[in-house]
Amino acid sequence: MSSAWLLPEHIADVLPSEARRIEELRRALLDAARGYGYELVMPPLLEYLESLLSGTGRELDLRTFKLVDQLSGRTMGVRADATPQVARIDAHLLNRRGVTRLCYCGPVLHTRPSGLHATREPLQFGAEIYGHAGLEADLEAQELALEGLHRIGMARLTLDMADARIVRDLLAGVAVDAAVLDQVYACLASKDAACLDDLTRGFPRDSRQGLLALIHLYGGAEVLDDAGKVLPAHAGITAALSDLRWLAEHLGRAHPEVRIGFDLADLSGYAYYSGTRFAVYAEGGADSLVRGGRYDEVGAVFGRNRPAVGFSTDLKELVRWTRVDGTRAAIRAPWGEAPALREAIRRLREQGQTVVCVLPGHEHEVQEFDCDRELTQVTGQWVVKAL
Amino acid sequence: MSSAWLLPEHIADVLPSEARRIEELRRALLDAARGYGYELVMPPLLEYLESLLSGTGRELDLRTFKLVDQLSGRTMGVRADATPQVARIDAHLLNRRGVTRLCYCGPVLHTRPSGLHATREPLQFGAEIYGHAGLEADLEAQELALEGLHRIGMARLTLDMADARIVRDLLAGVAVDAAVLDQVYACLASKDAACLDDLTRGFPRDSRQGLLALIHLYGGAEVLDDAGKVLPAHAGITAALSDLRWLAEHLGRAHPEVRIGFDLADLSGYAYYSGTRFAVYAEGGADSLVRGGRYDEVGAVFGRNRPAVGFSTDLKELVRWTRVDGTRAAIRAPWGEAPALREAIRRLREQGQTVVCVLPGHEHEVQEFDCDRELTQVTGQWVVKAL
Repeated sequence: MSSAWLLPEHIADVLPSEARRIEELRRALLDAARGYGYELVMPPLLEYLESLLSGTGRELDLRTFKLVDQLSGRTMGVRADATPQVARIDAHLLNRRGVTRLCYCGPVLHTRPSGLHATREPLQFGAEIYGHAGLEADLEAQELALEGLHRIGMARLTLDMADARIVRDLLAGVAVDAAVLDQVYACLASKDAACLDDLTRGFPRDSRQGLLALIHLYGGAEVLDDAGKVLPAHAGITAALSDLRWLAEHLGRAHPEVRIGFDLADLSGYAYYSGTRFAVYAEGGADSLVRGGRYDEVGAVFGRNRPAVGFSTDLKELVRWTRVDGTRAAIRAPWGEAPALREAIRRLREQGQTVVCVLPGHEHEVQEFDCDRELTQVTGQWVVKAL
Repeated sequence: MSSAWLLPEHIADVLPSEARRIEELRRALLDAARGYGYELVMPPLLEYLESLLSGTGRELDLRTFKLVDQLSGRTMGVRADATPQVARIDAHLLNRRGVTRLCYCGPVLHTRPSGLHATREPLQFGAEIYGHAGLEADLEAQELALEGLHRIGMARLTLDMADARIVRDLLAGVAVDAAVLDQVYACLASKDAACLDDLTRGFPRDSRQGLLALIHLYGGAEVLDDAGKVLPAHAGITAALSDLRWLAEHLGRAHPEVRIGFDLADLSGYAYYSGTRFAVYAEGGADSLVRGGRYDEVGAVFGRNRPAVGFSTDLKELVRWTRVDGTRAAIRAPWGEAPALREAIRRLREQGQTVVCVLPGHEHEVQEFDCDRELTQVTGQWVVKAL
C-alpha cells in the first residue's frame, strides 16, 4: 500500500496556490462571457456514446473513455470535449429561434494526453454563439476570447487564423480512403512537404498543388494575397480567403495590440470545424492557448442545423502562462468563544478577510497559511495588528 | 438518430437559470471557506482504483465507475467522493505538521443514484480540517457548514448529530459476518425494530439491547440523557455521549437560530467516519443537505494517520432549496464598429453590466436574454435608456 498515493500518468492534483489562481481565472472568464451576454450551462460528464460522439469525428472517439451504464446496459462516454454537448443543448433543449450565446466551464477527460506534458483532465472553458451565419459572430468569438485573456493579465498575444473550407475544397471529389486522408492531415499539421508530396501523387493536379502550397501559407497579411494566387479559385476557397480578410481587418482595427497571423495548413483540434478557425498563442508558446472557429454542422445530428461559432481553452494550461500571486495574506486569531472575539472575527470575514483560528494546543506551530496580521486584545478591544 | 439528445437516467443538463444560481452558490461557499482559512485544492476525477478506494468501504466501491487506463493497463476509478482524495493530499502531498484546512468543489460520478430523484453527477463542495484531535475542529466544521448555508440564504435549519463510535462499540467483539453486519446497519438506518430484533438474537445481551435502544434515540437534548441510561457504559460510548454534549452546548451558544437534534442510529453516508457526525436538514426536507464528521483513519493508508473532520454537500441538491433569482437584466446594444459605441460598451461591461450586441439581421427577433435597457445614440452620445 506504500504507493497508494501514486496517480496515473498525466493526471495530477492541483495544490493550493495553483488551485486558487485557476479559480480566479475561472471567475474572470465566466464574468467576461457574462458581460457579453453568454449564459452559463452545465452539460453532464456522462452521456450515451452515440449522442456524445455524433458527427464529431474519429479523434474525439479515440479520446473518449467508455463505460457501461448499470441502469440501461448501454455504453456511455465521459465527455472529452464539451462543444458538441453545448450544441445539443442549443438544438434540443433551448430550441430558440434567435441568437443564443452559451458558455460553460468544467473538466473533460482524455484517454490519452494530447502532448508530452498535457494533462488528461483539462478544465475546459468555452463560449459558443448559435444562430448567426454572418462573420460578426466569428468576430465576436475572437473578441471574447481576447477579452478573457486580457482580463487574466495576458498580453503580447498572437491570433492565427485558418479556414476549414480550404482543405475541404482541395480534397473535394478526391477518391482516397480515410487512412490516407488521416495521413494527409498529419503531414499538413507537421508541414512535412516530402510526405505530402508522396501521398498526393495520385491526386488531381489542382488538389495536389493546392495541398503542397498550403504548407508554405503561414505568416502575416501577405499570406492571403499569396493564397489567392497559388490556390485554385474554387468557390469555397475564394469565400474562405475573403472571410479571413474581412475578419483580420475588423479584428485588427479593434485589437491593434494583437499580432494577427495566418496558418492555412492548421487543422489541429477536432474535426467538426466548418468555416473560419482561429488559435491564440502566447509569446514564446508553441501550443495554442485558445482554439475556436465555426462549426455549423454539429447540431445537425440533434435535428437542428444552426450556424455556430465558439472557442475553448484549458484553464490548467492557461494558468501556467499567468502570474501566480503570493498567498493572499490572512489574520490569525486565538480560538475562543467570547462574544466580542467571535463578533470581531465575523466582521473581518464579512469584509472578505481570511481569519484563521489557532486551535487550542497549536499556538506554537508554524502556521502554513500566510498570516501577516493577528487579532489581539488591547485594553479590552479586539484589534488587528501586524505580525 | 432522433434520440441522440436523450440523456442516461439520473443524468441531466443544467440550464442557464439554474446554472447561474449554482455558480453563485459555488462562489459563496468557496468564499466562506476561504474566510475561515481553508485552502482550495483540485483532486483529479481519475485515480488508480486502489488509492481511490483504500479504506473507504464497500458502498463507495459499488458507486465507483471503473475504467482501464490505456497508458498503464491498470484499473482506474472515477471518483464518487472527494473526501478520501483530499485526505491523500493532506497526508502525502502537503505533509504538513500543523493544522491544515482544505476545501474543494467539483463533480463526482455515481454508478447508481442514491435515491429516486438523485443525480448520478453531484457537484460536491467540501471542507476538511486535518491535524487537530480536539472537538474545536468538529465545532469549526459544523460552524463553517452553517456559515455557508447562511450565506446562500438558507434559514430554519436543523443540525442532527450522531457518533460513529456508538455502533462500533456496541458491535465490538461480536462475531458476525459482513453480510449480517450490513443488514444490521440497514435496519438501524430504516429504524426497523422487528428486523433488528431478529438479526441480533444471537448477539451478546449488552450489544443487542444497545442496538435495539438506538432506534428510539432520536430527538432533542433529552436523547443524550436517555442514551446515558440505556446504553452500556463502554469507554467509546461514554466518550461519544460526552463529546456530543460538548458540541451541542457550544454550537447552541454560537448558533441559537439552529435547531440541534440527535439521531444516534444515523449511519448514512460512507463508512469512513470514526467519531462525531452531523447532518444538516432544511425545514421540510427528508434528505440531509450537508453531511460531515470526524474520520481520523482515512489518511492511514497513505502512511499518515492524522485527525480529520470535514463535511460535504451537493450543490445540485442545494440549489433546489434556494431562491433562484430572475435573470440579471441586460442592456441591448446595436452591432457596430464606431469607436464611440465600442467604448461605451466596453465601459459598461467593465462596470459588470451585461451588454448583448444585436447581430446584423436579428434586430427584430425576440431577445431571449432579458434586456431591460438599450444602448442608444442621443444627439451624438451613447446613452442607456430603459426599454
